[in-house]
Amino acid sequence: MSKENHSYKVHFLPHDREIVVQEGTTVLEAAHEANVYISSICGGMATCGKCKVVVEEGHVESPPTILLSPEELTNNYILACQARVTSNLLISIPPETRIEGGQILLSSEETLGVTAGKIHGLLPGVEYKHDPLVKKIFLELEPPTLDDNLPDYERLKRAIMLKEGISMEALEAGLEILKGLPACLRQNREDRWRITATVAQHGLMQEIIHIELGDTTQAGWGLAVDVGTTTIVTELLNLATGKALDIEATYNSQMKWGEDYIQRIMYAQERNALEDLQKSVIKDINGLLSILLARNHLKSEDIKAITCSGNTAMIHFLLVLDPTLIRKEPYIATANFIPTLKANELGIKIYRHSPLYCLPSVAAYVGGDITGGAMAIGLDQEEVLCLFIDIGTNGEVVLGNKEWMVCCSASAGPSFEGSGVRHGMRASSGAIERLDIAEDLSLSYKIIGNGQPRGICGSGLLDTIAALLRSGAINKSGKLLKGNSPRIRETEEGLEFLIVEAAQSTTGSDMVITQADIQNLIRSKAAIYSAVATLLEAMHLKPSDIQKVYLAGGFGSYLDIRNVITIGMLPEIPTDRIHFVGNSSLAGARLSLLSQEAFARVKDIASKMTYFDLMSNPRYMDEFISANFLPHTNPDEFPSVYQELAAKHPAFR
Amino acid sequence: MSKENHSYKVHFLPHDREIVVQEGTTVLEAAHEANVYISSICGGMATCGKCKVVVEEGHVESPPTILLSPEELTNNYILACQARVTSNLLISIPPETRIEGGQILLSSEETLGVTAGKIHGLLPGVEYKHDPLVKKIFLELEPPTLDDNLPDYERLKRAIMLKEGISMEALEAGLEILKGLPACLRQNREDRWRITATVAQHGLMQEIIHIELGDTTQAGWGLAVDVGTTTIVTELLNLATGKALDIEATYNSQMKWGEDYIQRIMYAQERNALEDLQKSVIKDINGLLSILLARNHLKSEDIKAITCSGNTAMIHFLLVLDPTLIRKEPYIATANFIPTLKANELGIKIYRHSPLYCLPSVAAYVGGDITGGAMAIGLDQEEVLCLFIDIGTNGEVVLGNKEWMVCCSASAGPSFEGSGVRHGMRASSGAIERLDIAEDLSLSYKIIGNGQPRGICGSGLLDTIAALLRSGAINKSGKLLKGNSPRIRETEEGLEFLIVEAAQSTTGSDMVITQADIQNLIRSKAAIYSAVATLLEAMHLKPSDIQKVYLAGGFGSYLDIRNVITIGMLPEIPTDRIHFVGNSSLAGARLSLLSQEAFARVKDIASKMTYFDLMSNPRYMDEFISANFLPHTNPDEFPSVYQELAAKHPAFR
Repeated sequence: MSKENHSYKVHFLPHDREIVVQEGTTVLEAAHEANVYISSICGGMATCGKCKVVVEEGHVESPPTILLSPEELTNNYILACQARVTSNLLISIPPETRIEGGQILLSSEETLGVTAGKIHGLLPGVEYKHDPLVKKIFLELEPPTLDDNLPDYERLKRAIMLKEGISMEALEAGLEILKGLPACLRQNREDRWRITATVAQHGLMQEIIHIELGDTTQAGWGLAVDVGTTTIVTELLNLATGKALDIEATYNSQMKWGEDYIQRIMYAQERNALEDLQKSVIKDINGLLSILLARNHLKSEDIKAITCSGNTAMIHFLLVLDPTLIRKEPYIATANFIPTLKANELGIKIYRHSPLYCLPSVAAYVGGDITGGAMAIGLDQEEVLCLFIDIGTNGEVVLGNKEWMVCCSASAGPSFEGSGVRHGMRASSGAIERLDIAEDLSLSYKIIGNGQPRGICGSGLLDTIAALLRSGAINKSGKLLKGNSPRIRETEEGLEFLIVEAAQSTTGSDMVITQADIQNLIRSKAAIYSAVATLLEAMHLKPSDIQKVYLAGGFGSYLDIRNVITIGMLPEIPTDRIHFVGNSSLAGARLSLLSQEAFARVKDIASKMTYFDLMSNPRYMDEFISANFLPHTNPDEFPSVYQELAAKHPAFR
Repeated sequence: MSKENHSYKVHFLPHDREIVVQEGTTVLEAAHEANVYISSICGGMATCGKCKVVVEEGHVESPPTILLSPEELTNNYILACQARVTSNLLISIPPETRIEGGQILLSSEETLGVTAGKIHGLLPGVEYKHDPLVKKIFLELEPPTLDDNLPDYERLKRAIMLKEGISMEALEAGLEILKGLPACLRQNREDRWRITATVAQHGLMQEIIHIELGDTTQAGWGLAVDVGTTTIVTELLNLATGKALDIEATYNSQMKWGEDYIQRIMYAQERNALEDLQKSVIKDINGLLSILLARNHLKSEDIKAITCSGNTAMIHFLLVLDPTLIRKEPYIATANFIPTLKANELGIKIYRHSPLYCLPSVAAYVGGDITGGAMAIGLDQEEVLCLFIDIGTNGEVVLGNKEWMVCCSASAGPSFEGSGVRHGMRASSGAIERLDIAEDLSLSYKIIGNGQPRGICGSGLLDTIAALLRSGAINKSGKLLKGNSPRIRETEEGLEFLIVEAAQSTTGSDMVITQADIQNLIRSKAAIYSAVATLLEAMHLKPSDIQKVYLAGGFGSYLDIRNVITIGMLPEIPTDRIHFVGNSSLAGARLSLLSQEAFARVKDIASKMTYFDLMSNPRYMDEFISANFLPHTNPDEFPSVYQELAAKHPAFR
């Protein structure tokens, strides 16, 4: 028998899940198959070292790696992405490697649900009618008589029309619903037929996608998905109450094919691998979904709708639409407005007739994450000039108000999402989300959830750069300055700054920020700043003209606004004008799911927004180069920051 | 090796088609598999004897039958439905058994096509805007630039909106079209992108179901299908020109499960065999389609739309909708208005995204064949009181005008469709469609097409009864009177009347009308008459109030109106008020296919028509019993017929 035919059991602890895999499968792949989620940032490239697990029984084939310490090796630690199964295995997943439930806490707004028939956006006063894209309607039908001999289907449509005001002409059902209708109605043992119909918006029509006996209106759920380049976030919502029940996130597994989507588009094109990219994101979504379902004791059939917000490229990957024209002048998407699809036809494992709605894009580089975010903050209803910035792997910038909106996009890189930074991580439990450094370089920090730190998330990284700058540990160029403190130390790869010692960390090793990390973060903030500056200049506006700034992204639950300015990510605008709104892309997906009004508003925003191309604008590169300093090469742009820093450091005088 | 594993080649002449089948397959099944069409009325029950074929080489297993003459047996004739394959076979199909092309001639109206943007109904002045449910639109798009960077999908929708005035919001495409769009557009080598989009009406939306390079607007075809209880007729139409290209019909293979649909519903329910009934009708349609495609050198992908008209039960069978409630008080259909479906999901082999539209029903016993027919004759626009009668296996009667319409249905049986009558046949080539009998009982007749007679179709049978009555060969009760003529002769089964001698017939045997045939035809005409009488009475109207009568059905291309009254199928109404309109059900399907206006009108008619139940009306049975005579028991109802007959026969004085 050939070697390829061997297969082995892999048992995971503490999950107590077992799976049979072929010899040679990686432990990470086996874990994915078993729906056991393991931290992994690099997507199996053996560079992040986040997927450490312990072999309790059995043996694996594993290449040498410097990402495991001698002590770890002695204790049978392996990198799950590198180790290949060569026997039956018992694997235990240490705490720092586990992806556990409820890591991203639901904010109070998110759990609010419906108040007086309204659902709430990300800002006070921004609210939309609670009227989900897919809704369950309880109906009581009169059984037919010789005098009222309307067929079952028209009887059902008449009842929906009377209750919901949807014209019978705009209502329809697929063949399967028609086939099941007579039996469903006649299950009723009472003198009235009591059923619940689930109706989904489909363009100008409303499709009856499900019927069942009795009143099940409270038992309808939907999924809002933020399909990010680096991070995928899924939120489980009750459609009737509007309440968010749970949330779950993971790094986008497509990262193994490139950090930004341009790299992935090139990969897809060169290798003819578009379908691989799609399968990868679908697997991620199905994985998150299975966690949410298990944790909330729901079945996949219970999910009656999905809304997806994401940038244009991510949506193209999701649907297997040709993305190659996105990266070639004149930068054309296949579609901005995606028709309503069945989630099932993409491979998403929910009720087979449930629709999937994509939030519409503005252009190849400004997607539904931005139009959804703009809706969630009510940008299109603002009286005054507003700036809306969503900091993800791309930094998108929108400027405008209820009269006009212009937008652009800059490639910021994933560092503020915790990727491409040695000890970076998503804003989930164990992440340092706030950090300060005293003059003696002693540290204070705040961790999401309880327990010891596992890494640093976006807001913590931003704080770190600002604090290093204030404390004098780094200079204008972001270079670590070797001084007396043992926190700044030399390694083979250059200087690094010690944040948490091994003894205080769950990972069992020192947590640091490296010189390379700092440079990555500076490039990210410079991309954002220069996008804002270029857009303002194009519109002949100054930073002081901006009355409100809304900053969005998966930083954490808190963002220190002064630090955002201190590092020069934003121009100097009075901090009371700046508001951090969290993950506005997810909010856009959530609000669209719960409100046809909100979804219509997103479409309206997508139609109205004017796209401004940075790539064809030579000013952008000039601005970017000038912004690659802390806070900026030009002191006049950041007078108050220079003033603050000058008090301590002569270099800023 | 077990016997079941043998398989044999069966080669059919003159078609020169070969197929491999399992041992034990009937020759009829093999022929169906090979797409070789053989006459068969009884659907394999060995009662009609129409499926005679000749075994040229090889041998079959065949039970004894009286339907083959000793001479035929000597010449290796077999019944294809009874003979089972037990070796390789060479089968030749004699002319009378062949179903050949173009048997039902297209009338001049049907081939008219579009005049001044209008298509024509069955009566002068009845016309509808030529605007097919599915249409091909030639578009010339400007390729995108940095200034006009609309995505491909929105660019396509914009072009359709500009050309056709369809709002972009009402236009959508499925995922497959989206996926193929960028490549299709960029196949264009010119400075403008020239493509043809096929757009299908789907409720309030218009779905882009196909895109292709260049201008192919003239190359779009659709199929109109009359799904009758006894006969299925398919007509091939060019969507752009509105011209009917070809027509093909077959007996409905479901006949093996019952002559009328009530029997079939019972069969489906008792045997849990609804899907068998559906597969049967789909196979019939696919068979007819393959003949039309082959004869017109088209591919299945060329067919972009199907419209189906049929009674409510037939549509339920077609869609596998539960029909059992149709036959139980209060007689409820699953649906009257069927949503737009994909033909493909029913198993009809045309382009996979082509829609199937069903003409809407009024009630469980009045279907889309009637609403479509009413539209085709413009009944809902008539100023004066009209009577519309469609004579099929059910006889449906509509009374009304533009103010109101009432309808009912009576079970007439299939005898006027040529079924249940010894030498009956469909109105196709070789059928006697007109017949007269002189006083000496000598016959004259007219045959459809050229050549010798193969059987008698509906109009010929109607003429036969009238002529037998006039000539004195039958009495009031329809009994054949044994006289001096050798044409009326005694057999073991009773008297029969010789119509064509074996020498003059293609079948090689005498063509007769039997006593049983006559009784069947009288019952059929009585059902129609009593339905008309009951409906008139219910509305407190008299026959003389009716200004126009439209008679429809698959009789042939000609119907002798005086004979319709002579046999008492219709009350005595001046013959110049009576018009034969042919197959109005097919016309309804054809007009709907070619005109969104016509289809909208059918829906409007279906909503407005009031159904009148005969089964719960005791008058109907009384009327039926009185009508079971020629022309009727009551001379006062038929004064002119009595007067005419009295001149010759004392019994009518």
